[in-house]
Amino acid sequence: MLPREKVFRDPVHNYIHVRHQVILDLINTPEFQRLRRIKQLGVANTVFQGAEHSRFTHSLGVYEITRQICDSFKNNYPDQWDDSERLVALCAALLHDVGHGPYSHTFEHIFNTDHEAITRRILCNESTNINHILREVAPDFPQKVASVIDHTYPNPQVVQMISSQIDADRMDYLLRDAYNTGTNYGLFDLTRILRVMRPYPDGIAFDANGMHAVEDYIVSRFQMYQQIYFHPVSRGMEVVLMHLLARAKTLYEAGRFDAAYNPRLLIPFFEGTWTLKDYLKLDDGVLNTYFTYWLDYPDPILKDFSDRFLSRRPLKSATFTSDTENLLPDLRTLVAEAGFDPEYYTAENDSFDLPYDAYDPSSANPKTQIEIMQLDGSLEELSTLSPLVAAISGRMTGDKRFYFPKTMLQKSGDSSTYQQFQHYLLNGALINLR
Amino acid sequence: MLPREKVFRDPVHNYIHVRHQVILDLINTPEFQRLRRIKQLGVANTVFQGAEHSRFTHSLGVYEITRQICDSFKNNYPDQWDDSERLVALCAALLHDVGHGPYSHTFEHIFNTDHEAITRRILCNESTNINHILREVAPDFPQKVASVIDHTYPNPQVVQMISSQIDADRMDYLLRDAYNTGTNYGLFDLTRILRVMRPYPDGIAFDANGMHAVEDYIVSRFQMYQQIYFHPVSRGMEVVLMHLLARAKTLYEAGRFDAAYNPRLLIPFFEGTWTLKDYLKLDDGVLNTYFTYWLDYPDPILKDFSDRFLSRRPLKSATFTSDTENLLPDLRTLVAEAGFDPEYYTAENDSFDLPYDAYDPSSANPKTQIEIMQLDGSLEELSTLSPLVAAISGRMTGDKRFYFPKTMLQKSGDSSTYQQFQHYLLNGALINLR
Amino acid sequence: MLPREKVFRDPVHNYIHVRHQVILDLINTPEFQRLRRIKQLGVANTVFQGAEHSRFTHSLGVYEITRQICDSFKNNYPDQWDDSERLVALCAALLHDVGHGPYSHTFEHIFNTDHEAITRRILCNESTNINHILREVAPDFPQKVASVIDHTYPNPQVVQMISSQIDADRMDYLLRDAYNTGTNYGLFDLTRILRVMRPYPDGIAFDANGMHAVEDYIVSRFQMYQQIYFHPVSRGMEVVLMHLLARAKTLYEAGRFDAAYNPRLLIPFFEGTWTLKDYLKLDDGVLNTYFTYWLDYPDPILKDFSDRFLSRRPLKSATFTSDTENLLPDLRTLVAEAGFDPEYYTAENDSFDLPYDAYDPSSANPKTQIEIMQLDGSLEELSTLSPLVAAISGRMTGDKRFYFPKTMLQKSGDSSTYQQFQHYLLNGALINLR
Amino acid sequence: MLPREKVFRDPVHNYIHVRHQVILDLINTPEFQRLRRIKQLGVANTVFQGAEHSRFTHSLGVYEITRQICDSFKNNYPDQWDDSERLVALCAALLHDVGHGPYSHTFEHIFNTDHEAITRRILCNESTNINHILREVAPDFPQKVASVIDHTYPNPQVVQMISSQIDADRMDYLLRDAYNTGTNYGLFDLTRILRVMRPYPDGIAFDANGMHAVEDYIVSRFQMYQQIYFHPVSRGMEVVLMHLLARAKTLYEAGRFDAAYNPRLLIPFFEGTWTLKDYLKLDDGVLNTYFTYWLDYPDPILKDFSDRFLSRRPLKSATFTSDTENLLPDLRTLVAEAGFDPEYYTAENDSFDLPYDAYDPSSANPKTQIEIMQLDGSLEELSTLSPLVAAISGRMTGDKRFYFPKTMLQKSGDSSTYQQFQHYLLNGALINLR
Repeated sequence: MLPREKVFRDPVHNYIHVRHQVILDLINTPEFQRLRRIKQLGVANTVFQGAEHSRFTHSLGVYEITRQICDSFKNNYPDQWDDSERLVALCAALLHDVGHGPYSHTFEHIFNTDHEAITRRILCNESTNINHILREVAPDFPQKVASVIDHTYPNPQVVQMISSQIDADRMDYLLRDAYNTGTNYGLFDLTRILRVMRPYPDGIAFDANGMHAVEDYIVSRFQMYQQIYFHPVSRGMEVVLMHLLARAKTLYEAGRFDAAYNPRLLIPFFEGTWTLKDYLKLDDGVLNTYFTYWLDYPDPILKDFSDRFLSRRPLKSATFTSDTENLLPDLRTLVAEAGFDPEYYTAENDSFDLPYDAYDPSSANPKTQIEIMQLDGSLEELSTLSPLVAAISGRMTGDKRFYFPKTMLQKSGDSSTYQQFQHYLLNGALINLR
Repeated sequence: MLPREKVFRDPVHNYIHVRHQVILDLINTPEFQRLRRIKQLGVANTVFQGAEHSRFTHSLGVYEITRQICDSFKNNYPDQWDDSERLVALCAALLHDVGHGPYSHTFEHIFNTDHEAITRRILCNESTNINHILREVAPDFPQKVASVIDHTYPNPQVVQMISSQIDADRMDYLLRDAYNTGTNYGLFDLTRILRVMRPYPDGIAFDANGMHAVEDYIVSRFQMYQQIYFHPVSRGMEVVLMHLLARAKTLYEAGRFDAAYNPRLLIPFFEGTWTLKDYLKLDDGVLNTYFTYWLDYPDPILKDFSDRFLSRRPLKSATFTSDTENLLPDLRTLVAEAGFDPEYYTAENDSFDLPYDAYDPSSANPKTQIEIMQLDGSLEELSTLSPLVAAISGRMTGDKRFYFPKTMLQKSGDSSTYQQFQHYLLNGALINLR
Repeated sequence: MLPREKVFRDPVHNYIHVRHQVILDLINTPEFQRLRRIKQLGVANTVFQGAEHSRFTHSLGVYEITRQICDSFKNNYPDQWDDSERLVALCAALLHDVGHGPYSHTFEHIFNTDHEAITRRILCNESTNINHILREVAPDFPQKVASVIDHTYPNPQVVQMISSQIDADRMDYLLRDAYNTGTNYGLFDLTRILRVMRPYPDGIAFDANGMHAVEDYIVSRFQMYQQIYFHPVSRGMEVVLMHLLARAKTLYEAGRFDAAYNPRLLIPFFEGTWTLKDYLKLDDGVLNTYFTYWLDYPDPILKDFSDRFLSRRPLKSATFTSDTENLLPDLRTLVAEAGFDPEYYTAENDSFDLPYDAYDPSSANPKTQIEIMQLDGSLEELSTLSPLVAAISGRMTGDKRFYFPKTMLQKSGDSSTYQQFQHYLLNGALINLR
Repeated sequence: MLPREKVFRDPVHNYIHVRHQVILDLINTPEFQRLRRIKQLGVANTVFQGAEHSRFTHSLGVYEITRQICDSFKNNYPDQWDDSERLVALCAALLHDVGHGPYSHTFEHIFNTDHEAITRRILCNESTNINHILREVAPDFPQKVASVIDHTYPNPQVVQMISSQIDADRMDYLLRDAYNTGTNYGLFDLTRILRVMRPYPDGIAFDANGMHAVEDYIVSRFQMYQQIYFHPVSRGMEVVLMHLLARAKTLYEAGRFDAAYNPRLLIPFFEGTWTLKDYLKLDDGVLNTYFTYWLDYPDPILKDFSDRFLSRRPLKSATFTSDTENLLPDLRTLVAEAGFDPEYYTAENDSFDLPYDAYDPSSANPKTQIEIMQLDGSLEELSTLSPLVAAISGRMTGDKRFYFPKTMLQKSGDSSTYQQFQHYLLNGALINLR
């Protein structure tokens, strides 16, 4: 324990309180400090300009909420909560995202990395500072923390704190993303939720009189997905990034990179030979630096996508449905006729999320459902009590979009290619143009 | 004008309203989008973790406040304000920081660049997209906008909107830095200040009944400097950055860099041959990428400072005064005895600011003083009305600090070097250890 | 028009802007100033202590939102909105609640008053200052303003601004009640809703890209009803007030009041002879003053209920259903056995609201449904687009509660009356005890 | 102790946490519930309309801050703080304002009551419910709580928590008044102040690294006085109330009241025979009720002032100085010539406050100065460290105003009385007209 509590100022939680030396030491590792250089929401700041916050601030926020949950459990439910679990919970909260790379999902898709597996390696591989610090607690402590993040830790209370349909991770990111984007969709009553959260032998439940606060959190989460995380322009920037990295990989594999444009820190990823040490050198700025190199690269596609990414020129999009999906080949042909390689200049992108679901043992990935504890101690699943939650429970929501160059929308009288493309839009093949 | 107003969501101003096509086009230039990759407060996020916002969001904020001032002047003082000045004011507001480089003042110090001169070049040099867009308004428009930023534009109302002791720039950064750091020192009543701001032939004054809102702004600004901008740990990170860049330059000049660690985009700056195009490729991430390269560099000082910067290991510090300044050579000698090169591992750093000053024609850089308009139309200078402002007016505030490695504070029984160093601290040669 | 805009500071809207002399004059009438002495939420401050705000501040808030809507319509849709309608809209907004009495619905129930009819009289009866001011605009202007409030005004845009399922009234009270109670259930994005609101010939619609902001408003409203407006303890205080006034009326009718306890300003209401002038003398404090008188009154019921109301001793309650309704007579009998007059010491109270409904011409009170305007100009009713709204659309929500003295819950071993009463609760005849 | 913590929702502190049965019982007494009917800021809501909050919510806020201070002292300074003092501190915090009457200072002035003496009686007189509850803790407990409020309690830490230049009372009212008026002058960093507050044997000090937070609090307090508490229009309403009560007293003493207008609950105060029980029946609404009676009273002055108070028609005012004070008799004569009784229709009113002062043993009422604890444990008085605090320390600030009827400003060509009055204003006899 620290001789005196240390605090970090935070715009969302006001102060983040640290009392364990091991937590402070973990924060001060290079592996954790690196999260300052990875934005929490990737490219979303190109649409919601304030979304410039990093995985570092989010990780400290998840830690802080977990700390508050432990304090509440210790004070109010000493018989139901074993406070010797606190340190493993706090470490798991702090470190749950430490394996994330730059522009997470897009990078993973191209380079076939897996941030969860990497998180486990950062915790358990003896080469890291984080592992070293965790090992000093106990030889098996790194593995224990990793098992919380993996959901294999035996105490379900600890696992659900960090990872469930209402956990410290989600609660922090909703509040933090709302704060930084300047929207209020993600706001909910954290203080009240913490008050009504209670441990029971099989996990964490919520007092019946706090049902509406939990309902409000689920609705907020649904709205954040609809409004922020699935924003079509933001996805248009992700498509640009995806195709940019894909093009770079293709060029590298064709042996066409020359020294002046050499993305030194990315080479192990192009070659599939990367080590953990290579991975920990990456951040958003490293990728952007290479994109800057490529602004002058002879390949017109690499050059154009680098510029699109750095100067925010997303592809446009419109939604299609299963009824109109069959028209996409025609649209791609028209894009090709207009002089754009459709492999890079078109894309299909869908964004779907399950806002909430009751437990379904037959599903591929059964969710830990949210349990509301009645006055008599019995548990009722949330959606049976809330018509709002029932309305969105078990329903995938989102849309499918077709992406294409903005040029396709230009009004140039003499080109039938453009006119034909726009004709499809006018006739409803695609709707909700953004 | 745009067919329909376009808005950008912003956490500080809620929405930023754009009605001119030229403003939208300027925002979409590569030169302006680059500001997304330069943090507004440089290294301050290592102390106030939420301070991750960029010069991009700040620049849009300055634009928005200027737009609101123009709207207010147009509606309330149509005889005193010529609304045909609006566009030049808006462009100057948006672009006033476009010449900033990464980690601004530190970078400028080492590489002898000047962000104000570069701003002028970005506006007036025909190679840039920004110049191209401004020229379409009128051939002399780039120069007009630049002259507002230079304070040479003939209309003092426009100049003071953008640059004075109470201007759109300062008002946005105080609010934005307060929002992102999560402190409330920088809060003041923007709406009320905008209401009491009024144009008069020689510039901008404030209605007498708004004096307290202006006073509150000056006090807020003073407090932000004391609490945020002059934070000793933040300055300790700036010292690290300064010495890191200085070491890299020294190594380059000694011809000792090898290819694998080659900071390609920085070479023109080491060589003093950089062009505007070279400058516009730089951002925070580019510098961080090279620091990542240097984590493996054979030179122990470059390597250590790269790690200090990336992993947040600042130098420690304490204040000294003119009375104790003569002891610094001894302290430096002890640092050297402990095995640290004092050229890199010690520093003197002072931070002083003039929170407010009345106009003094004899000063090197006379300030446009804040004028309060009485009911009879006469003007009174702010500090004559406010005892709070008078208390800090014309007084430089800040401190001088001596920086050194944290190791010097270690309790190692057998080393007289450390004991002697600490002895100086105990005897008050240095105080306010941080 | 005023020579210079006048503002009122407001915690919800920051400033309330007044430009018309007539609006300022209306605010300064005794009839309108009286609203300062009537709390917006009646007895809700006994549960949410901050809910101490008045109908005065709310009325100015409704005015301000209406003013902002008019500004937006004038700037963005000059062809669809006739700005000469502004003044009638503003007056109707300001005055829509001017006929409210103290503790509105409870008072109305006992004394058979009707605040809507009284509003009309305040506007149209030549004795009032408000009528006098309105008449100076035009002889038929009082009637025009009244007809907006009555929904008979020919322009549906004006009517819907003030009174529809998403109007200035509801938007202000949700924000204001949320602010003052310190809950965030009532928060929604007012700025965005105002941006996407648009006039069309048959009323007001909302741009498709603002659908989620409208959805969020409906959900917020639903949650405020569930959490604040229907709070069981608050309703327990309303029951106390209802029975207190009923008892006083009964005593008066029985001729049993004596001079020292004489509720002078209430007598015309006991006698059914009240005039508008009598009505305008009432406020919350007048009623409380008489309750204070009655603390010493010989009748034990009047005395006890006066004390219950002034010292916040609500009746307790639990919900019943159609299945358990038949047990209420037994419960009342037990309350009587315990020595309480069940006419006063028990009550059934239900609170139901229709959070939103699509237009149904067959309903008793068809609602103006919320229309979302698609890109092609067609209108779609909100609940067809939003699963959340569909979930609560057309569904009455609320509960039925049985109220009784807290004493019935006491654990006094020897009394079988209490035990029997509690036995019913244990067996589920009543649930959700509060 | 309560079986489970009970909370009250509060807009300023989010939740107010109660763990002691005695605190809950005190809140539920008629004496304490009565504070709901007395506005914290008296007539200030006639200028800052949101200032409708009561002494009840403020009292709970003072309790909550005190509770947080005790928690912090117990956790961080167990050797310096005796937690058995907690209950006396909490009770004193909760009850410190319980003796306030309606429209406090004005009422006291006319009826010669003293809220501090009455507070002591409410605590110590065996007739009250509060006394009864306190006595159950210990026979001498009522007296102990009263002695904290009187500053005679032996433990200076407890006294300073409740009453010093930076105490729970002031901290709550600044935050709460700022919240409800919607201004941000009163905001300061409560969380940080609580963190740096520390007990020492002679009282409470503040850590040196929190000096700026304390400075900010003092500046905020100064600004609230200047902007809110001393507002000239608000004082104009206090003058109206003062003269209204004075007139009623004069009429009563002259025997001229008749039954229909009889202010029953005020009679003991007119006669000087009031008991504690009489006092506890008063609240803002009782006074307003009698003012409503008097709207029809034959005496034109009583009638006019009743209407002025209820319908918000303040006297106007302007400042005078020691140089122009000699002109006031002339001005009063002119007011008399215009037909107004100058005894009622004019007034001199000054508002002065000492924002902060260092301890001065020679002063009539020496202040407990704010001590900043240096790293070496020595104490330094705040104003020696802060130029802002030094600027306002020991300086009375405020102004003197002359009040008169608005009619005196009318432009009626033929009346030389009005012209002469206005002439004085034009020539600067009075300035800052409001």
